[in-house]
Amino acid sequence: MNFFENGNTKVFALGGLGEVGKNMYVVVHNNEIIIIDSGVMFPKDELLGIDYVIPDYTFLKENEDKIKALFITHGHEDHIGGIPFLLQSVKIPVIYAPNQAAELIKRKIEERNIPFNELKVINGDSKIKFKNFEIEFFNTTHSIPDSLGIAITTPNGVIVSTGDFKFDLTPIGPMSNIHKMAEIGKKGVTLLLSDSTNALVEGFSKSEFKVDTALGDIFVRHTGRIIIATFASNIYRLKHIIETSKKNNRKVVLFGRSMEINVTIAIESGYIDGKDVIVSPDEALKLNENEITILCTGSQGEPLAALSRIANGTHKHIKLLPNDIVVFSSSPIPGNGAYIAKTINQLYLKGVRVLTNTSLNDIHASGHGNEEELQLMLRLMKPKYFMPVHGEFRMLKRHADLAIECGMDKNNIFVMDNGDVLTINKDGAKKDNGVTAGDVYVDGNRIGDIGGIVIRDRILMANDGIMVLIANINQETKELITNVNITTRGFILVNENEELLHKISLCASESIRKNIKNVKGNYNDLKTLVIQDVSPFIVNQTGRKPLILPVFLEIKK
Amino acid sequence: MNFFENGNTKVFALGGLGEVGKNMYVVVHNNEIIIIDSGVMFPKDELLGIDYVIPDYTFLKENEDKIKALFITHGHEDHIGGIPFLLQSVKIPVIYAPNQAAELIKRKIEERNIPFNELKVINGDSKIKFKNFEIEFFNTTHSIPDSLGIAITTPNGVIVSTGDFKFDLTPIGPMSNIHKMAEIGKKGVTLLLSDSTNALVEGFSKSEFKVDTALGDIFVRHTGRIIIATFASNIYRLKHIIETSKKNNRKVVLFGRSMEINVTIAIESGYIDGKDVIVSPDEALKLNENEITILCTGSQGEPLAALSRIANGTHKHIKLLPNDIVVFSSSPIPGNGAYIAKTINQLYLKGVRVLTNTSLNDIHASGHGNEEELQLMLRLMKPKYFMPVHGEFRMLKRHADLAIECGMDKNNIFVMDNGDVLTINKDGAKKDNGVTAGDVYVDGNRIGDIGGIVIRDRILMANDGIMVLIANINQETKELITNVNITTRGFILVNENEELLHKISLCASESIRKNIKNVKGNYNDLKTLVIQDVSPFIVNQTGRKPLILPVFLEIKK
Repeated sequence: MNFFENGNTKVFALGGLGEVGKNMYVVVHNNEIIIIDSGVMFPKDELLGIDYVIPDYTFLKENEDKIKALFITHGHEDHIGGIPFLLQSVKIPVIYAPNQAAELIKRKIEERNIPFNELKVINGDSKIKFKNFEIEFFNTTHSIPDSLGIAITTPNGVIVSTGDFKFDLTPIGPMSNIHKMAEIGKKGVTLLLSDSTNALVEGFSKSEFKVDTALGDIFVRHTGRIIIATFASNIYRLKHIIETSKKNNRKVVLFGRSMEINVTIAIESGYIDGKDVIVSPDEALKLNENEITILCTGSQGEPLAALSRIANGTHKHIKLLPNDIVVFSSSPIPGNGAYIAKTINQLYLKGVRVLTNTSLNDIHASGHGNEEELQLMLRLMKPKYFMPVHGEFRMLKRHADLAIECGMDKNNIFVMDNGDVLTINKDGAKKDNGVTAGDVYVDGNRIGDIGGIVIRDRILMANDGIMVLIANINQETKELITNVNITTRGFILVNENEELLHKISLCASESIRKNIKNVKGNYNDLKTLVIQDVSPFIVNQTGRKPLILPVFLEIKK
Repeated sequence: MNFFENGNTKVFALGGLGEVGKNMYVVVHNNEIIIIDSGVMFPKDELLGIDYVIPDYTFLKENEDKIKALFITHGHEDHIGGIPFLLQSVKIPVIYAPNQAAELIKRKIEERNIPFNELKVINGDSKIKFKNFEIEFFNTTHSIPDSLGIAITTPNGVIVSTGDFKFDLTPIGPMSNIHKMAEIGKKGVTLLLSDSTNALVEGFSKSEFKVDTALGDIFVRHTGRIIIATFASNIYRLKHIIETSKKNNRKVVLFGRSMEINVTIAIESGYIDGKDVIVSPDEALKLNENEITILCTGSQGEPLAALSRIANGTHKHIKLLPNDIVVFSSSPIPGNGAYIAKTINQLYLKGVRVLTNTSLNDIHASGHGNEEELQLMLRLMKPKYFMPVHGEFRMLKRHADLAIECGMDKNNIFVMDNGDVLTINKDGAKKDNGVTAGDVYVDGNRIGDIGGIVIRDRILMANDGIMVLIANINQETKELITNVNITTRGFILVNENEELLHKISLCASESIRKNIKNVKGNYNDLKTLVIQDVSPFIVNQTGRKPLILPVFLEIKK
């Protein structure tokens, strides 16, 4: 049966299921494809040296003639970061994005010189029609302005994708459009895709208003410089910090590139009242301590971010002063705990005061809704079918349980993986044959020419270094000309271990002399034999297993 | 002034300050040195490939004739793990250790064939005398049996080192000897060294009794196999799980080497009633699901530990069954969050139930006391001077604040670093000139021949791989014989990028031909020039910065 043209509506993810990151959801009906979001994921520690992970775009590439549009829900990297890579390999006729996201996308595209003009701004009132789809939007609350949910009317009913959301009843920005959500739910939703990020967190998330109050208190009480590290993507937090600084006669210095970009766009777009508040590091040096706020990246202890460099004393513009207070207006992302601890320890060693989410409860709130809010969304939308998205499996699973608690039939809930396809038609919804999905690695400016073998080699070298054995072979006689030359990196201190390296060279040379006559053709078999002889000797002498790389060079004598 | 023989008592740490791990505290008076604990630290992620970090033993090596004894407070790795390395470089006349620790030390020493007989078992009633020191002990509660605090009477007063402790008023093992602590405190303590691990945690720590109840409930309710991951060093937790299994007619299978060793010793020493309970994996296969408890390592998501292999389906003995329940009886150590999440996700994918510290509150309790307990110790001991130990700086700092809250003068509190020396005499206590201290890395079976340069190379190769450029040079004419041979690992997929590698070879060869005539002597300057020419080309083509390793070989033609 053909994937297209059969009256079925198909919904699947190319990214975002079983992970937090690289969100990309696809809706297909007959010959039309629409895409929701195009994110990146930041690699886990074991993916050594990889800059980004993006979805496998094979399905989109193979069917690019059918793609109608890419819709963006909001401007965070896990929803827009993949766009430059997507545009390099797949023809996308038009991108619809809300204002803040559109500004960020424009910069991304320009930075990389990708020619693309069809970027259109949408808002909560926009409506877009294709042959099989009618698309409308509803405003949600998240940690960035202009966050939208999407409702897609298909011949098989309405599909709603919430985007990222929380229900903040006292938000810094505009309220979620609960009334429109209720209206969409009342008319009938066939399938709901909903954000699972905080499905494991009990209760109702903290309002940004409380953070406002807690941070405001710090500004009232503290007379030294205030240094605040937070997520550069949390525009409302930045808005609060900058506007409160202004009220308290403090100027704001920005450290960190992403911080500068986000603040600039938010001021230009009118989200932040930042007139005459932002100053350069040089201007800040002329001010008194109680006239300065430093807003910086590094709340996750990232080794190269501004706060880490301030903490370890290598920041080129600022040195810590005894009266400084450092505020982590953030929560630790799993895996970053040790980095954050290191930064905090360095700050304590410098003698400054440090406030974290642990020491003071209200200095951070998440942008994602907790259990109660996820259930409120489920109640508002009353979907027939439910697909939890945007989360690791433990989150998707918990979100499914939350829906069951709200009375949904567990057979109508689909906890799926990237590439799994949900087919909806008059008979109902069922899981169907999948499409190609997977992780593609971006390292430097090249997409995908990193394979498992490259990562495996990096892991080997990371653990015990490399040992290169260079053997020059007489082209005619096929004899080893001199003993094997040994070059190592990351294995052992070379100067202190010359004797050991000499012994290894003898061991390798002997192995080659012994085996070279018996090995025909190219040198691959000989390489294997040399590694088999040398490796146990090295393990025995050092307990280490470096990557051993024999190189045979034929020399004409 | 001589460090020794001046009537001063000197106290310092060679490990344990500014870190959680490698505890080693030293007390010196005139010509006598005693050491308290000899631990390892497990390396942070950025110390690629390093197995352990141990203290720099220089001070002890240089003064080994003065060392009287090593005292061990309890059998955890951060207190005993360094002993095999210490014994290899420093002559220690005798080690005094409580029973469980002594058993573990004996195995460590035997495993490595280190000849050492002077291992003596002590308990809470032991007393040991040297010329300048009189040493006694007091029982504390920790997550391992036989935990001792130490009180050392010196000519300048009593120095107490608590070891690791909590105050559990309903413990699984014996109570702390609060009365002896009170007695020591009443007689007068000059200096207290106290455990700061949980100084940042409010309140009073949870009793192991509550964990007992919570885990007991699982045994009553659950009818499938119960799989429990916990720290192998937490003997009381193991005791509870094994004895509760016995009561509920379940046999216990152990997975993980450290689990097997610890349980074996604890059963032999009589701490655990494990008679006829422990079975082999093969025997377990013959039992019903409700007759099996699996006790395994991997509660921190360690990639090679038993639970991780069970979760990803690669464990050689067991496959998960739908009715299994997996219990994490542990809390995440900072930095391990992402690994633990990965394991949990894999378990959910396999469809089993998972209980963690987050989903069920009482299935883990720490072995270290919280704020209130640290203050109780301070009140019991009423020390004149206080040195918080066993913790990162933020913990030491907080512990100092807790002492100030108890009325201590802040000038009598010393937050110090490893190697800082506190000198006590009739005039009081003051920070003095330091001794050599630092981190020594153990990788494989070699101690210390890993330097910063080796680690830096590993980090470079971990990020972008290595590129070896081999240039054969005619020994007489000093000309490049053929174009540079390029071998790479961890840089790029070689087969798909032959053209790029060829271009890099041409670039390197050209650089050599251009520069070789102008460079005199050895090839070091030429290597630098080649790297300067090739590196920007590679960055431009790939965005990556591999470690570039030029090798020049002179060939006699």
